[in-house]
This record gives sequence, structure tokens and C-alpha cells, in this order.
Amino acid sequence: MKIALSQINPKTADCKKNTETMAKELANTNSDVLQVFPELSLCGSPLYGLADYQDLYTDSMHYAEELSNQNKDFIFGMPLRQEGKAYNAMVFVREGQVQALSTKQNLTPFDSGFSKGRGIELIEYNQKSIAFGFLDDLEAFVAQSKKASLVICSANVVFELDKQQHLLQKLQPLVRRLACPLIVVNRCGAEGRYVFNGGSFVMQPNGNLAEQLPLFEPQTLVVETEKLQSLRQNPLSRPEKLFGASVLGIRDYFHKNSIPKAVIGLSGGIDSALVVALAVEALGKENVVGVLLPSEYSTSHSITDATRSAELLGIKYYTIPIKESFTTILSSLSPVFANLPFSLAEENLQSRIRCCILMGIANKIGAALLNTSNKSEAAVGYGTLYGDTSGGIGPIGDMYKTQVWELSKWINRNGEVIPQNSITKAPSAELRPDQKDSDSLPEYDLLDQILYQHLEERKDKSEIIAAGFDKEIVEKVLRLVKINEWKRRQAAPSLKMTSSTFGLDIQIPVS
Amino acid sequence: MKIALSQINPKTADCKKNTETMAKELANTNSDVLQVFPELSLCGSPLYGLADYQDLYTDSMHYAEELSNQNKDFIFGMPLRQEGKAYNAMVFVREGQVQALSTKQNLTPFDSGFSKGRGIELIEYNQKSIAFGFLDDLEAFVAQSKKASLVICSANVVFELDKQQHLLQKLQPLVRRLACPLIVVNRCGAEGRYVFNGGSFVMQPNGNLAEQLPLFEPQTLVVETEKLQSLRQNPLSRPEKLFGASVLGIRDYFHKNSIPKAVIGLSGGIDSALVVALAVEALGKENVVGVLLPSEYSTSHSITDATRSAELLGIKYYTIPIKESFTTILSSLSPVFANLPFSLAEENLQSRIRCCILMGIANKIGAALLNTSNKSEAAVGYGTLYGDTSGGIGPIGDMYKTQVWELSKWINRNGEVIPQNSITKAPSAELRPDQKDSDSLPEYDLLDQILYQHLEERKDKSEIIAAGFDKEIVEKVLRLVKINEWKRRQAAPSLKMTSSTFGLDIQIPVS
Repeated sequence: MKIALSQINPKTADCKKNTETMAKELANTNSDVLQVFPELSLCGSPLYGLADYQDLYTDSMHYAEELSNQNKDFIFGMPLRQEGKAYNAMVFVREGQVQALSTKQNLTPFDSGFSKGRGIELIEYNQKSIAFGFLDDLEAFVAQSKKASLVICSANVVFELDKQQHLLQKLQPLVRRLACPLIVVNRCGAEGRYVFNGGSFVMQPNGNLAEQLPLFEPQTLVVETEKLQSLRQNPLSRPEKLFGASVLGIRDYFHKNSIPKAVIGLSGGIDSALVVALAVEALGKENVVGVLLPSEYSTSHSITDATRSAELLGIKYYTIPIKESFTTILSSLSPVFANLPFSLAEENLQSRIRCCILMGIANKIGAALLNTSNKSEAAVGYGTLYGDTSGGIGPIGDMYKTQVWELSKWINRNGEVIPQNSITKAPSAELRPDQKDSDSLPEYDLLDQILYQHLEERKDKSEIIAAGFDKEIVEKVLRLVKINEWKRRQAAPSLKMTSSTFGLDIQIPVS
Repeated sequence: MKIALSQINPKTADCKKNTETMAKELANTNSDVLQVFPELSLCGSPLYGLADYQDLYTDSMHYAEELSNQNKDFIFGMPLRQEGKAYNAMVFVREGQVQALSTKQNLTPFDSGFSKGRGIELIEYNQKSIAFGFLDDLEAFVAQSKKASLVICSANVVFELDKQQHLLQKLQPLVRRLACPLIVVNRCGAEGRYVFNGGSFVMQPNGNLAEQLPLFEPQTLVVETEKLQSLRQNPLSRPEKLFGASVLGIRDYFHKNSIPKAVIGLSGGIDSALVVALAVEALGKENVVGVLLPSEYSTSHSITDATRSAELLGIKYYTIPIKESFTTILSSLSPVFANLPFSLAEENLQSRIRCCILMGIANKIGAALLNTSNKSEAAVGYGTLYGDTSGGIGPIGDMYKTQVWELSKWINRNGEVIPQNSITKAPSAELRPDQKDSDSLPEYDLLDQILYQHLEERKDKSEIIAAGFDKEIVEKVLRLVKINEWKRRQAAPSLKMTSSTFGLDIQIPVS
């Protein structure tokens, strides 16, 4: 049997566009092929509150009817209201007629608003018994020990660094129990903080992979289920995955929200140098604007590194010194600040003035500001709220600082894209004379190890100390993570890269 | 049987303090009384990610043992790990010995990290059969048709304007089926955006209320279950509830986070005048600092109204004009702005400079900024991100503008606390000459009606138009709600007042 895996990139709540995408894919496929689309391919996801409103269902039904006019065989996903209840459904269409429905049983947080459905369904198709429905319902289906000659699951798997490998490993024993091929069609594309990585695949009855579509790009692949052969896997390296996910995340954020240009503050440090390189890859150099915002505490290398970053990428950039603005606002504050000593207030003020200028430019030219914070900084609160924590989306906000270096070196593997000096020099916020990040934080190598154990592995203080780390440093780091949650609640949303993204997987109470 | 309803105000993740609170309550109660505490009274809630970490359970066990040394009879709530699984548990202690446990079965989003438990348990106590456990498990218990002579439920009910009445109505038929008294002990106090309203109560077997503790304050009440009489209910009015919830929310935010002072920008408008009045009620006038930030577009009445607001409350206030700062930053932007016309960029810049100054003062004096946005503005995006959407907590961010007026008039019921002119004048952001909110928005009366139907009643466009509203206005308002979600994601967290709080109950996709 011929099956097309159509790994498309739908846009949330744009049924018209998604229908056009699917219709085009159907038109490009022979009529002896059963074409499979991802979960909620008609309306995109996550839907959040939209699932509570009737127009989602009215709209979806309208476009589903239009799509079904295609005289083809295919499976697509849509939200459906039946007898007062809403379901996440996969629809099996044969020659323009709806043959069967599978409604999702094992609901996830993305299914808020939907009721529990019936799970994977069996259907006779070309004299064979085919099971179809949702990947989230596969375990329950396997437990029923029903017989099928092929299982087809649609999905909306969100990218995390190690998730694809974990998923394949988890499915192997299930497929062996099914003793038939498994086809999984995942969507790709990004929606806000979530990157859907694609990587749709076909598994042989022995659990070996037969086909796998690329990560991070839409593609359609036709397979013959009687002619499956083992695939030699060639998984992407960590920096390749970080690169692919962040570039896709940036591109879809700007394109799907119809924002033509990105603005980025260039400090000469590694974080902004990496973000601007990713933005140029995602949007093209003509759509990225760099802004240097030197202060009286900026070193000369920060200006030359920032300039070099812009010039290596060939983007337009402006230099807007903040000293006068800083002096003027500070003097307006004299009724309060009077003769009080220089403190965090003045450091933060510089960062906030930069935000005023960057957002001013973004507003004026119809652009969005890209945030340049990394996960290590966000974890310990090393940033200024309404200052450098600002931006429409944060491409590296869920990457540890050590991963920022790793990715930057990978980008430079064939030549200097990111200034070499930005990679090698000691990180500094440059908000007071001779400031270094390591003045107030442990070195990032050590910091990231502690954060990884605490955030990704959910180890508490005594478990991390027992693993051999210095008690005082662990206590300090974990205290910083805890007391800085309030900042993270209002920081730029970052693209999800790990299984412990702040705000999505990790929330800490703020009283 | 004598039961003490101990409506305490625990602090999340502070088992030591909460144990002290409970020990003190136990010491004040006679030993022939069974004392009941709220859900998770030992560690507070919501716990969010903390439930994933071992130290929560180690800590809780330590303090639970200390508490149990009290030679009394009582029921308290704690998180518990048994055989590798974590539960939300109520513990029944008799004369210092643990007699029984009820583990929560019907898990809610607050129970993330906990496994499904066994629900309400029956225990013999003083020759009677008592059922105890969680309010969330009551429906399942009633369905089992077991006999008890008394049912005791602990809870963590979050405040919403109409929730207490809805809860009482929902419980009446359940209690009639139980045919015995029901005792519900709810916590009070606020944690971040959530206000827990208290209002613990005793229901007679016929569903009539016998006792009800006050909303918004901790209190202990001893009842004799054989001597229950019907209570004449005297529910609080809407402004009384909004007042109580917002004052408690402000107070606990500052006290539990150990922030001594609040800073508020005073515009002369109704929103900031209301917030500063609430803050003075919550924190005392000596802990509230007002800041006037006039611009070249400020009218004279905005300065006199803002001054009057501060003087009526007797707070310290500063006046820091922003004109020079605005001119300086704007001139630094000339390489980009050049001869482009005045636009939203300049309007937003003024608002962001105010944020720089307010946060500068807050940082310098160790205070937190209170946000002054209301729900109507947040809904339609009438505010500047990193400008007036800023603040540690937003006391009126979940109140519609019409409720802001209603509450302000109520506060003025015995005399002018909020300047009368701030209540009566037409709202304006004063970011360009002669600007009025109604230049770009429908009048608030109309706007709030449309928003209420869309947000609280989850009506879509055609349903609201069918209810008799102008098509063009409805379309405009709903479009604004949709395209401004990105701003709300980074705005100050607001205290939850309704069943459709942005970010908690209502989320809209941002691509």
C-alpha cells in the first residue's frame, strides 16, 4: 500500500491557508496513495482558548467540506463539535467521502477545551485492516491487542533536544507488540515558543526505522508499506538541532505574525552576536537591523566586536550612544537619588534606556525586537527586567551559555560568521567599570552543570551537593533561581529547546 | 462533636512558618475539639514545579512530625511521597498519632506533580463515622453512597467574583444526598496572582448554610455539629469583594516577598488613583510612594488630580517631569527617526521613559512598582509594553474599566479618598495633544459589555453581533483582543478576580 507522509507547517487559526496547503499537497500526489497529514492540520495548534469558541468549529467545518471535495484518499486533523462536546479528531476521507473518525482519548495540555474521545479506530481499506488516529493514543491501542496490518498515527510533537531519539526508543517495543508497520506523521513549523520539529517516520514491524523525514522542514514522502527497508540513522548533532530549531522559530515568528524586520541590540558579546547570525539565516540580511548602544562603561573591544558582527553578516546597523540619555534621566531622578551611592538602580537604568531606544526603533520601522538572553542568565536573574530581558521572542533563551558557545563555534566551522573575539573573551554586562559576569556568578562551565542537574534532572540541593559540587556555590545558585522567578514571568518568551523551559515546564512560586 | 475550622493563610514553601501558625492555632483550642486546616496547609500552594523536588517532601515530613507532637486531634494538609509516588494528602492526627490519610483523587492543575490518590476516607472517631479529605473529591464520594455522620473537606478555592455563591449552590444537592453536615475549610491569603478567599463554611444536611467565616481574613471558628442553625446570609457586594481581594493580594505580595514599599506612577487618572488607594489600605501610607511624571502633553488637571490623590491619602510623592529625558533620547534616535512623522513610537517612548524612572526609584529605595492597568485596556492592548504595562503585580489588571469606576465610587462612599475629578473626567493616555481613550476605542460602557460577552461568556463574533451589538465595533474589539496577546504575555501579572483572567484562563495563540 502506498502512503504519503505529508509533514506540513500549518498556521494556527488560519484554516483557509492550511486548507490551501493541504489541497496543493493532495493535487501533487497520485490517486492510488493514501495521504496522511499531522494532528490538527486544518487549524494548527496549540489552540489554547480558541477551542472554547464556536467559530473555530464553524470555520473548520466549512474548510473541511471544501477539502473533502478533493476526490482523493487522505487523513487529516481538525477540531469537531458533536452533541455539545468538542473533540480533537482525525478524519479518514475516501474518494471525497468521510469514512471514519478517530477522536483523541489521551488528552494533553494542548487539548484544553476538548473532551475525551474514543482513541485509535480500525478501518477496512483496500482489503486491509488499518488502524488510524493519534500518536498519544498508541499505547492504549497496543494494550487492546487488536490486529491491524498497518498503524497510522498523526502527531504534534514539540521539539526538545533529545525528544526524537526518546520517542523512537519508546515506540520500538510498542511496534514489536503490534507486529506491523507504524507510520507517524508529525507537523513542522513554529508557533510562538513551540517548535514542531517534523521528523515524521516509518517503523518496520521489528522496530527498526525504515524512513525518516528531515527535521525542521515541510516535506512529503511516499512509501510502499510492503517494501520497507532498514534506514541507517544519521541523527543531527546538538548544535545542528539548536540551529535548525532556533532558525525555524525565528522565521515562523516573523512570517506568521507578518512582521517584516528584526531589530537586535549588538553589545559585542557572544549572545547578541549569535542571535543576529541566527536572525540573518532566518530572515535574510536585508531584514535585520543591528543597533550598537555604547555607554560610558563600554570597552573599546565591545564596539569593535559589535561592528565586526554586523559587518561579517552584511546587515545595516546604527550606533546610538546612551551616555547623554543616561545623564539626563539620572539628573531628573536627583530628587530621589540625591547623594545616594551608585547601585543596581543605575546599572538597570542603562539597560532600560537601551530597551527604550531599541523598542523606539522597532516601533518606528515596523519591526520586532529580538531578545538576546540565554538560559543561564535567565535562571540566575542576571538581566534587567524591561531592559535586556525584553523582546518579541528569545531565540536562545532556552540555551545554556555553554550551548551558546558550542553553537557559535559550530556556526563558525567553515569561517568566521560570529566574531572570534566575541567567542573567546570573558563575558561582561559592562554596566559598571571593569565588570565581569564572573564577579557575581560562578564560571559558566560550573554554573551550567549545577543548573542542568537542578532544572533538567530535577535534583534538589542535597542531591547536587552529594554529586560532588561545592555546598556554598550550589546554595547560592539555587537561591538565585528561586528568587528571580518574578523576572522570568515578564521576560521575553523564549523558544523551547529543552525539557525544562522556564514558564512552560518549570514554574516556581512567586508569592 | 466540636470542630474547629481553622482558615489560615499559609505561605508557599515555608513549612516552618506554616507549622508555627498551625501550632499556635492548636494551642489556642481546647483538646475536646477536632481542628481542621485547609488543603496543603503545611507547605502552601500553588507549588508548581516544587512538587518535582525531593526537598519539598523531606521538609514537609520533618515539620509534619514536629506538628504531630502536639497532643491534639486535628486534620492538616501536606505533600507526601509513598512508594515512589507523590500525593496531595490530608492527614488525620489523634492525640499525636497519625490515624488516617486521604490522598487526592480528582487532581486539578494546581496538583501538577502529584499522582491520583484514593479520595475521601472514612474513619471512626468518637463512635461516629466521619468522612474526611478534599473538596475536589466530594462529588466522587457522594456517588459512592457511603454513610457518614459528618463530612469534612479541606480546600484551596481561588477567589473569583461569583465563585463562593456558585460553590454553595453546587454543593447543596450533594449535601442533601449525603444527609449529614458538611464542613469545608478553605485557606485565605494570596500567592502571586491567586487570592484564596477563605469563606470556610458549615452546611446543614438540608443544604442550608449554618456558619460562614469571613472572606479575605484568617480566622478560627469552633462549631458543635449537633447544634447547627440556619445562617442568614449577607453576601458582600461586588465592590466589597473587589476591594477585599485586591487589598489582600497587594498586602500578601509585598509581605510574603519581604518588599517593604510600593512605588506608583500617578497620572491623575482613575486607574492610578484607585491603585494608590488600595496600596495605602494594604501597606499603610508610610510604605507607599507616588511619582508624578508629567510630559509636555500632560494637562494641568492631570497634575492637580494626581497631587490631590497623593494628598488625600497622605503619602510621600515626587514630581519628575519627563520632557528633557524624552527630548534627549529622541534626539539620540535621530539617525533612525530623521524626519519621519510623530507616531506610536514617540507615544510609547514617553511611557517607557516613565517605566525607567519608576523602576529606577523602586530599585533605589528597595520597593516594587505597582502596575495600574485595567482589564479593558489589557484586552484591547491600550498600553505600552515595557512602559505602563510594567510592575511587580497588577491589582486592577483583572477588573474592567467600569468596575474600576464602580470600586472607586464605593471607596468614596463616605468621603473623597479618590479625587472626584479622576472619577468623572474622560480617560486619556495624554501621550499626544488632546488625546482621549475614546479616540481609538469605543466608550468603556460599550467596550466592557462586548468584552464581557467575549471573555467571560466565551461568545464568538457572530454570537455577540446576534445579541444586538454593532458588527463593525464587535469586529474591531475582537480583533484588538486577538492581536494584542503578545503584549499581555509580558505584562505585569494581575490579581485574578474573574473566571477569565488573561494568562490563566484565557490564552490566545501568538504565532
